[in-house]
Amino acid sequence: MKLALMQANSSVLDIGRNCAVIDRAAQAAAEAGAGVLLTPELFPVGYAPLRVRTELDPGALPAIRRDLARIAARHRIALVHSLPVVTPGGEWQISATVLDRNGNELLSYAKVHLFGPEERKAFSPADAAPAVVDLGGLKASLVICYDVEFPETVRAAAAAGAELLLVPTALAHGFESVPQVLLRARALESQLTVAYANHSGEEDGCAFLGGSVIAGPDGELLAAAGRGEELLYAEVSAEAARQARDAVPYLRERRADVYRAWEDAGGAARP
Amino acid sequence: MKLALMQANSSVLDIGRNCAVIDRAAQAAAEAGAGVLLTPELFPVGYAPLRVRTELDPGALPAIRRDLARIAARHRIALVHSLPVVTPGGEWQISATVLDRNGNELLSYAKVHLFGPEERKAFSPADAAPAVVDLGGLKASLVICYDVEFPETVRAAAAAGAELLLVPTALAHGFESVPQVLLRARALESQLTVAYANHSGEEDGCAFLGGSVIAGPDGELLAAAGRGEELLYAEVSAEAARQARDAVPYLRERRADVYRAWEDAGGAARP
Repeated sequence: MKLALMQANSSVLDIGRNCAVIDRAAQAAAEAGAGVLLTPELFPVGYAPLRVRTELDPGALPAIRRDLARIAARHRIALVHSLPVVTPGGEWQISATVLDRNGNELLSYAKVHLFGPEERKAFSPADAAPAVVDLGGLKASLVICYDVEFPETVRAAAAAGAELLLVPTALAHGFESVPQVLLRARALESQLTVAYANHSGEEDGCAFLGGSVIAGPDGELLAAAGRGEELLYAEVSAEAARQARDAVPYLRERRADVYRAWEDAGGAARP
Repeated sequence: MKLALMQANSSVLDIGRNCAVIDRAAQAAAEAGAGVLLTPELFPVGYAPLRVRTELDPGALPAIRRDLARIAARHRIALVHSLPVVTPGGEWQISATVLDRNGNELLSYAKVHLFGPEERKAFSPADAAPAVVDLGGLKASLVICYDVEFPETVRAAAAAGAELLLVPTALAHGFESVPQVLLRARALESQLTVAYANHSGEEDGCAFLGGSVIAGPDGELLAAAGRGEELLYAEVSAEAARQARDAVPYLRERRADVYRAWEDAGGAARP
C-alpha cells in the first residue's frame, strides 16, 4: 500500500480553511495512488491547546467529523485525522481517528502522554492502550505526538500486533532528534513502519519543525520532509515487518517476565 | 570525569596478549587523565562463545580477574572488563565488572539477553536487573551488548538512578544502525550517557563493526570510532543528565501504572 503523509500549516480555529487543506491533500494523494493519508495532530482546529479549549464550541465537533468523513469518501482514500474529543464525563482529550475509504471510522485513540503545561491545562490524559485494525492489508495502530517518545507506548502497539504505526504530531522547532533519532529507533526496536506527520510554519506563536518522517521496520528512513508544506509518500507492507522480525527477533526475545520482576522489585526506588 | 573507551581486536584465548592490550590502553587512558576505561564484551578471552565455552578452563578465571585488578591498580584507573562467569549451579554466563582505581570490585552484572544460537548454546541468560554504583561522582550502571537494544533494560538502569551506562559489546559488521540509531535513542529517551565499546577487526571468523560510540543524555554523540583500533574519550557528568531531565522530564512523565495495566490486559494476545 502507498501511504501519503501531509505536512502542512494550520490556521488556528479556521476550520473551513484547514479542512480544505486536507481535502486538497486527499485529492492529490488519491490521484497518486495512495491508500491512506495521515495528517498532523489537531490539524483541523490548529495546534493551540488553550485557545482551542476555550474558544472551540464542542457542539461543532460532530459536523467537523462529518466533513472529514466526506473528504475520505469523496476521494476514496483512508484518512487519519486528529481532533479534540469530549468524554461523557466532560473531559477534553486529544484524539486521532482512522477512517476507511468510505469515511467510516475504523479506529480511534486518545493521547496518553500530554506534553508541557499548556497541553496539560487544556486537556486530560487518556489511559487506553493503542489498538490495532486492518488497513490495506497491514495491522495499523495509532498514537499521538509525545506518546511515541516513550518506548513503552510503541511496544504496546507492537505487542497488539501493529505493523504500521500512524502518528499525528505537533513538534516544535529545536527537537530535531525526535524524528531523526527516536522515531527511527521506535521503528527498529519494535520492527514496524512508523509514519510521523508534523505541522510546518507557525501557529499562534509556536514555530513547528516540519521534518516529518516515515521510517521502515529496519529503522531506515523511507521518506523525510523539509521544513515547509509537503506531501510524503512511501510504500508500506506487512512483509517488511515480517522480514525485520525474522532477521532479529526483538519481539520474541523480549524478556517480559524478567522486566516485570524488576519493576516489582524496584517500584519504590524510582527517581 | 573523563571516560576512556577502548575499541580493539582480541585474539581468541590468547589471554596474556589480550590483557596486555588492556594494560597499554589503561596506561594511555590514565596518562590522558581518564578516570575510567571501558573495554569490549569478553575481550580478555576473545569473542568466540563456543570455543570459549569448550576450551577455556574455568579454573583460570580467578587469575585473569586478579591480572585485570592489578592493571587497574597499577595505572590508578577504574576499569570495566567483561569475562565469562560460572555460577554456583555450574551455568556459564557473560558478565561485566566495574573495578575501582585500586582494583576492587564495585559492581558486576550478567547478560540478560543472549544474541543468536551460538551464544545461547554456550551461555545461559541471567535474570538480575542492572544495579547502580557511584563512579567518579556519577551513578553508573552496566549492561552488555544485545541487552541495550531492548529499551526495557535501559529503563531499568535509569529507574535505578543511572546517569552513566557502560556497555561492553561485540557487534558484527552490518548492524550500523545499532550504535548510530538505537544507542543514541537509549541515551535520549532515558537521559543518561551511554558508552558502547566494541571489538574491531576479525575474531574467529566474525568481522566486527567497530563503530563504538559515547552518546550524551540529549542523544548527541560525544565521540564515535571508525572501524579500527581506537581509544575514545569524552567528558561525562551527572549534571548533563540533570539538565536533560529538567528540559524534557521523560522519566517523571512515564506512565508506569498505565503500562502495567496494558500488559495485564494484553498478555495473552502477544504475538
